[in-house]
Amino acid sequence: MHEFDIINTYFAPLTSPEGLSLQDDAALLAPSERCEQVVTKDLLVAGTHFFPNDDPSKLAQKLWAVNCSDLAAMGAVPKSYFLGLALPKNTDEDWIKAFANGVKQALTLYGGALLGGDTTRHHDAKSPLVLSLTAIGEVPKGKALLRSGAKAGDELYVTGAIGDAYLGLQLLLGKLDASLLTVKESDVLKKRYHLPSARISFGQALQDIASACADISDGLVADAEHIALASDVGVDIQCEDIPLSPAAKKLCDQHVATIEQLITAGDDYELLVTVPPEKRQALHALSKQLNLPTTLIGKITKGQGVKVFQAGQPVLLQQTGYRHF
Amino acid sequence: MHEFDIINTYFAPLTSPEGLSLQDDAALLAPSERCEQVVTKDLLVAGTHFFPNDDPSKLAQKLWAVNCSDLAAMGAVPKSYFLGLALPKNTDEDWIKAFANGVKQALTLYGGALLGGDTTRHHDAKSPLVLSLTAIGEVPKGKALLRSGAKAGDELYVTGAIGDAYLGLQLLLGKLDASLLTVKESDVLKKRYHLPSARISFGQALQDIASACADISDGLVADAEHIALASDVGVDIQCEDIPLSPAAKKLCDQHVATIEQLITAGDDYELLVTVPPEKRQALHALSKQLNLPTTLIGKITKGQGVKVFQAGQPVLLQQTGYRHF
Repeated sequence: MHEFDIINTYFAPLTSPEGLSLQDDAALLAPSERCEQVVTKDLLVAGTHFFPNDDPSKLAQKLWAVNCSDLAAMGAVPKSYFLGLALPKNTDEDWIKAFANGVKQALTLYGGALLGGDTTRHHDAKSPLVLSLTAIGEVPKGKALLRSGAKAGDELYVTGAIGDAYLGLQLLLGKLDASLLTVKESDVLKKRYHLPSARISFGQALQDIASACADISDGLVADAEHIALASDVGVDIQCEDIPLSPAAKKLCDQHVATIEQLITAGDDYELLVTVPPEKRQALHALSKQLNLPTTLIGKITKGQGVKVFQAGQPVLLQQTGYRHF
Repeated sequence: MHEFDIINTYFAPLTSPEGLSLQDDAALLAPSERCEQVVTKDLLVAGTHFFPNDDPSKLAQKLWAVNCSDLAAMGAVPKSYFLGLALPKNTDEDWIKAFANGVKQALTLYGGALLGGDTTRHHDAKSPLVLSLTAIGEVPKGKALLRSGAKAGDELYVTGAIGDAYLGLQLLLGKLDASLLTVKESDVLKKRYHLPSARISFGQALQDIASACADISDGLVADAEHIALASDVGVDIQCEDIPLSPAAKKLCDQHVATIEQLITAGDDYELLVTVPPEKRQALHALSKQLNLPTTLIGKITKGQGVKVFQAGQPVLLQQTGYRHF
């Protein structure tokens, strides 16, 4: 299939009018009044971020989740997307069809419109697939959540559970003994790796609650460091308070995984939120309303950097997060 | 070098405050009032769009030119950029330094600010470099140039000269005998391939002159087809009126290149403009003011598709433009 045929058959039907049916050189957007835009761009590279044979529909959904998670961390609502594909030369139509189907599901889940992009092919069949998404969101003027707003005395919360995606990846790599888990538990962990959820509604509702926010892509400790640096504060984290799924808890109890691993692995796409004590009740109410658990895992101090404690003792970490090079 | 070190050392110094020093999950933009945004995203892939050993500084400038050319075609002024890099595993610091230097030059030339992006590495050294840029421009509300505005009776103009980049590429591929040209002529052609110019000022000034516009990336005839299709008109092009550089003319005169090749090759990044006859004088004045030649090469008809004529006779083209798969 030619580039134009792929676009006309699979991607043009997914676009909105602002995308000018992908017929023009670019898309035309009318930004909402009294809003600021939040723009992010994340790449996923085969062999680095995913397995070359991963289900294309799930890949599309993960690409969207990873980018929308950045918007969620700033309290923004997704409005438009631009998709870049560098396909291996032998990519067949079935792959493209399944990928486009995943894009459709992601658009339904996160909202916003696909407005353009670029579809291109590698010179050979062995070159890895590269997926690039640009996501543009909107937030009312002055309401964006930044990493720089944390103050000493604020409480540190995290949404959901930590470490499942890392454990799912270890299962897929064959580095973790699956017999320790039920089939259902294994499936839950693998699904958390393949299909993370961007916390869009939660991030948006945090606009008047959180003092700072980041999503956990590099690892809980690494992303807490980003807040510490940007806000010029210290962050104390209590290991025993880190929320774990039943499967993760089982693996930690059996000493197959450690909490240190789980808080320094990436790909959680949960939100790390600092909240002034007087907003605590509002956070709990929101958590209940959106049915997304939030857990108090530490506090913001006058210090610098991140300190991790286990049973009151400081924990020395070998690394703070996932670095892919 | 780690991703964070590359960003902090080479890219953060190139960013503007809206990029939040690349410390946040995304960038925060305040779109101008009474403006629409024009957004484009183009990828360049090693082995497909450029030579793996190309000068990184020139690559950065070409990446910017290719994207800014899309903005120029819609009459927009560049405002912000988001850069995605998938680097081969062995990419060294010198390469990154030179690439960042090219980015700096492009920002000076085209204006606008680098606000974010994603730097990632391939799993191995053999995987090709992939460059992805998202460019966001602005145009006063209702003033964007579209491909869909051409009307029967309009005149068809093209800026600059056609085919030089294609001939430069043939020289670089060793498919064209360089001895037919002076060293200076060869250098001019190769430079037009490596360092195209996006016609930003010209595109912007066309807002009140052109009825439709496209940039020539796929090839003159292919991009004229885009206008024909989007405007539901016919386009007649006269081969003998196509503007050629002295070097291109020499090669055509010696039958080493044909005009058919030059109008169906891509990478010119000139503007293809339809103009109502009453705006002809305004176009000529603009052309003089900006010192960019524009040439009348055809007309818009009530027909469909593109017809190419040579000495009054229709020319049958084997293909209309460059398709990279």
